[in-house]
Amino acid sequence: MALLVEKYGGTSVKNVTRVMEVAYNVRDRIKEGHQIVMVVSAPGGMTDELIERAKSINSNPRGRELDVLLSTGEQISIALMAMALENLGVKAISYTASQLGIITVGEHNSARIKEIHTEMVKRKLDEGYVVIVAGFQGVTPGGAVTTLGRGGSDTSAVALGAALGAREVDIYTDVDGVYSADPRIVEGAVKHSDISYEEMIEMAGSGAKVLHSRSVELAAKYGIDIHLRSSFNWREGTRIGEEKHMEKHVIRGIAATENLTKVSIEGRCLSLSDTIGAISRSGANIDVITHNYQRGRTEISCIIKEEYLDSALSAIETGEVSWRKELAKVSVIGLGVKSKGTAATVFDILSREGIEVEGVSCSEINISCIIPEEDVKRAQCALHKELIETE
Amino acid sequence: MALLVEKYGGTSVKNVTRVMEVAYNVRDRIKEGHQIVMVVSAPGGMTDELIERAKSINSNPRGRELDVLLSTGEQISIALMAMALENLGVKAISYTASQLGIITVGEHNSARIKEIHTEMVKRKLDEGYVVIVAGFQGVTPGGAVTTLGRGGSDTSAVALGAALGAREVDIYTDVDGVYSADPRIVEGAVKHSDISYEEMIEMAGSGAKVLHSRSVELAAKYGIDIHLRSSFNWREGTRIGEEKHMEKHVIRGIAATENLTKVSIEGRCLSLSDTIGAISRSGANIDVITHNYQRGRTEISCIIKEEYLDSALSAIETGEVSWRKELAKVSVIGLGVKSKGTAATVFDILSREGIEVEGVSCSEINISCIIPEEDVKRAQCALHKELIETE
Repeated sequence: MALLVEKYGGTSVKNVTRVMEVAYNVRDRIKEGHQIVMVVSAPGGMTDELIERAKSINSNPRGRELDVLLSTGEQISIALMAMALENLGVKAISYTASQLGIITVGEHNSARIKEIHTEMVKRKLDEGYVVIVAGFQGVTPGGAVTTLGRGGSDTSAVALGAALGAREVDIYTDVDGVYSADPRIVEGAVKHSDISYEEMIEMAGSGAKVLHSRSVELAAKYGIDIHLRSSFNWREGTRIGEEKHMEKHVIRGIAATENLTKVSIEGRCLSLSDTIGAISRSGANIDVITHNYQRGRTEISCIIKEEYLDSALSAIETGEVSWRKELAKVSVIGLGVKSKGTAATVFDILSREGIEVEGVSCSEINISCIIPEEDVKRAQCALHKELIETE
Repeated sequence: MALLVEKYGGTSVKNVTRVMEVAYNVRDRIKEGHQIVMVVSAPGGMTDELIERAKSINSNPRGRELDVLLSTGEQISIALMAMALENLGVKAISYTASQLGIITVGEHNSARIKEIHTEMVKRKLDEGYVVIVAGFQGVTPGGAVTTLGRGGSDTSAVALGAALGAREVDIYTDVDGVYSADPRIVEGAVKHSDISYEEMIEMAGSGAKVLHSRSVELAAKYGIDIHLRSSFNWREGTRIGEEKHMEKHVIRGIAATENLTKVSIEGRCLSLSDTIGAISRSGANIDVITHNYQRGRTEISCIIKEEYLDSALSAIETGEVSWRKELAKVSVIGLGVKSKGTAATVFDILSREGIEVEGVSCSEINISCIIPEEDVKRAQCALHKELIETE
């Protein structure tokens, strides 16, 4: 008998058929004698619909009220899941974050979990219940509803796993694992059976939208394995955990992000911190910063998502500003990136493909190149073929 | 400056346009210096949709989980209403029943309000906020979400008004008051400017579905006037309060209920309490009971809604059972019913119309006749014409 902590994403509870499919599967594992804690997301698409409805009433709704609104999606899912399990003769009980006591700190819409009261969960598990917890949401010490930011249910599940002392958390979604590249783009992409926390964080940050980055950081902190898998086929997926490939430093994945814009600011006496600070306060996440100082003139450039261009432009107060749209970032990720001197190979491959590189950023396990958006698929295929398929 | 407690029903917050319309109106009254507490229902149709979704997963969902599900509708409304008011520059804050402390006792799905913590409401009113409270819902002392039964938001509003010491509660809906008969059926139906609690309770119980009966009982208990009015035209509606027509005992309304069935049980040694008890436990609300004992044989009949016929039939254990479907009840309501000996006039009118009477029940202020469903519109028109229009 084991304690299983399982998270089900929006596509896994999108409609009655999906909810029942999950309930049947949970029942089978209950019959095997396991204890199960489920963390569920809002039905697929509902959070977007609610945001749209809010924006049609108030283009800039207050965080507190937006959280009251958005938390209803998960509340609907937990109730329906409990009903589905009870219909199969399985004792089940649902809890919102307020009811359970998932205490958060920080801003509305992007709150962080401070602590989770687990007494109730433990008691109900001991009484034979499947405990169903609303993901994505929390509550302030004062009783206001909060949410953790888009994709936050992954983090709810890992935090609950940590609080309950689980060794592993299953995250069920509509893909069956982490691939070496997007299989819709790169034909030879292969599924990893395991991948390290660090590689997963880089993958997630580089466009592979399979997991909420914060959930992986939290899993690493508490030494919990995440088993990312599909509720559509229930097969073994990818385990995200401590690095297991001793010395075998390989390239593990190619990821990409599109819709990027390069903003460049040139002038005398430009302050890097003032300039980047202004753009950052405008709401844009900043990636790949370059900074040149030559003959008394400073040039600063950075990469932001195109949707933040207007607000970034109005935030910049000094210097001559220019920008280039329709860029993308292609990233090569793996613990082997640095040790093998892969950077030169990456540039060589892109050069042979005739793809121009507008900027580069490297970490210990990630080489990212900014390239024209129109070349991004070709770049992924070429890099995957030479760096992964030929290994 | 006055404290206004206002309830908005589902049609008043059904979509973005309606929510904004209500918000504009509330803003105008805030500008006049009033303090406003709003109680809002789920967007029109949403509760039915949620019930349907629940039933498609579990035909008999547990009350606790159904309440978790159904309470999301009002939660959506309070958040959207707060956003709408803030968009107009009006400070507003929303509370679910759990957050505020609307403590209930009794069964899930039909809980009763025990007490309401009003400290937070008072503080926020003093700070200049419009306070928006989710109707229909409550919370047990143990923290489980409850609901008050369909139409329960009316009761939430009156209970909140009582707790805050309000003299009047405005209930905004899609009709602009209480009519002497259904205006869609009886051409000469007139709107009452006021009506007594007792008459309103009889009207509600006899098919005029404008108000949750429990809200009227509660208003009577605390001496609060209910002002029933429309958020579609904002005109003066009907005030429900203490009887004001001293000595002027009149007929105030004609109401009707359709889809009724008469169930008759005949036999030796039938026990009235056993028979009626069995039908009642099957879930049916029982109306107009008759009981005959002649030559050693007992005949018991009662009127139930047609939807309960199957369960009632399987609950009856002894006696020969027969039934008649497609019946209706037409009710003549008013404090003048008894004093004027109206019963004979009612029977005379129906008889002249050639309408057969299958059963009768009377109270101090209500004469109800069971008649064939096909005659119910004709009966309402004839009774209204002779008893109300000619007064």
